[in-house]
Amino acid sequence: MAAVIQRLTVIGTGLIGGSFALALREAGAVDHVIGVDADRANLERARALGIIDEMAFSPGDGVARADAVFIAVPVCSIVECVREIASAVPHGCIITDGGSVKAALVRECESLIPPGRSFIGGHPIAGTEHSGADAAFAALYRGKRCILTPSPTSDLQALETVSKLWRATGAVVSCMEAGHHDRIFAEISHLPHAVAYALVHAVGIADVEGENVLSYTAGGFRDFTRIASSDPVMWRDISLMNRDALLASLDGFSTSLNELRQRIASGDRDGLTAFFTIAKQFRDGII
Amino acid sequence: MAAVIQRLTVIGTGLIGGSFALALREAGAVDHVIGVDADRANLERARALGIIDEMAFSPGDGVARADAVFIAVPVCSIVECVREIASAVPHGCIITDGGSVKAALVRECESLIPPGRSFIGGHPIAGTEHSGADAAFAALYRGKRCILTPSPTSDLQALETVSKLWRATGAVVSCMEAGHHDRIFAEISHLPHAVAYALVHAVGIADVEGENVLSYTAGGFRDFTRIASSDPVMWRDISLMNRDALLASLDGFSTSLNELRQRIASGDRDGLTAFFTIAKQFRDGII
Repeated sequence: MAAVIQRLTVIGTGLIGGSFALALREAGAVDHVIGVDADRANLERARALGIIDEMAFSPGDGVARADAVFIAVPVCSIVECVREIASAVPHGCIITDGGSVKAALVRECESLIPPGRSFIGGHPIAGTEHSGADAAFAALYRGKRCILTPSPTSDLQALETVSKLWRATGAVVSCMEAGHHDRIFAEISHLPHAVAYALVHAVGIADVEGENVLSYTAGGFRDFTRIASSDPVMWRDISLMNRDALLASLDGFSTSLNELRQRIASGDRDGLTAFFTIAKQFRDGII
Repeated sequence: MAAVIQRLTVIGTGLIGGSFALALREAGAVDHVIGVDADRANLERARALGIIDEMAFSPGDGVARADAVFIAVPVCSIVECVREIASAVPHGCIITDGGSVKAALVRECESLIPPGRSFIGGHPIAGTEHSGADAAFAALYRGKRCILTPSPTSDLQALETVSKLWRATGAVVSCMEAGHHDRIFAEISHLPHAVAYALVHAVGIADVEGENVLSYTAGGFRDFTRIASSDPVMWRDISLMNRDALLASLDGFSTSLNELRQRIASGDRDGLTAFFTIAKQFRDGII
């Protein structure tokens, strides 16, 4: 394909940023990729693996000649990263990110960008349990969703360029309002993580005649609670960045849980069958 | 090996009962297996597959010459099954089961058995997502736990025989008090199922600006909620049969969840890091 842009700078050359660069190089969508990473060894690894053409040793240096910048650092560091590069990004440059919480982040990033530059929020729904440049691969985004969250003031040409880049990775791109994104992901991602952490916490501290209950767990429990093995610091940050939506989702969950508890407590056989059947139908509907 | 018993009757020749019979035949632990199943086609399939030697067309007929009876029907039907065979089991016969809830069930079954016969409760921690005679295989229990729940009045020789049979299937046998069993499984199995059903229920009915939130779910959500695809009727029965322990587990979970909610609501960064880290340590400890 014809290149979408010439020079791409990727800040954070790990799984997310590295796979983005690899996919775009493979598609011929970019001519030259500059990498920036706080972890020097990971940056050199990205260079050695052919993920990037060139290393830059500060975000400011890295973005100075970029047509587009993809920020793939931890979600809580994205605003700080934009603050750091804001004065260095050239006129016409487009900045986008891969953070999983959007509303407050997009608002702050937009306010930091000088006139003539654009910020377009993005969230690719893809990942693996691995991290770092070694985990990156060109097919990560193929057939996966990528959600862009433009605001009413977003530059449409910048939005189109970011969209073209993601489509070039093989992702299926859609747009939605940032707050709507955050409410959806509070339900389908942040709530399940909170519930999984709370469940493991509760079972872990449960005292059944002094026995270590966890020693009896089998595959089902391990599968169910796998997401409670995720990075605690990342989930602290996501919980706080999407606090309002997550609290609303937690309250909705508590309502459902209390309804179930009530039906168990009152021995409501029909009510329990109905509750479990409705839930199973929701679950089977998404397979 | 030398046979542990001569004649075994299996009531319910599906995955659990069929695999028990296959494993014991393969080990040479039984000489002759009689099968009983309310589903005639499944019973004939068990015969055709060599799981059983002989079909019986009523539980009473099936147990009349048995040295041991293994009841592998749905957990809510076990007491009824024991009631039905109680007058037909010969003197010296041992009855055991594979139900996943034990205390009330064992109490009732013991009260139904005439003098000179024994009931020993059991719970093999094994299974697959398949069911029926076709799903049965001899290695199902190999290396898996089987918990026996004898009571203070249990016949020790009967307990030893049931234990030998399970060991012959390859299972690792341990004993515990039935109420203790139920409290442990409330925590590690029944609570996670209730939570998964409640989670899918809550997300399924969540109204995020009228959008079907479930359409955004990816692999993580599907994996996390897989157990909410289980049989609603079976989980209704388990919830009610283990009501008290499950309610206590639900309350412990709600306490943990509320603690997490409070830390999110108050923006308690250190408290959140600690909560998620403790949970992750519990989770990683069971891998």
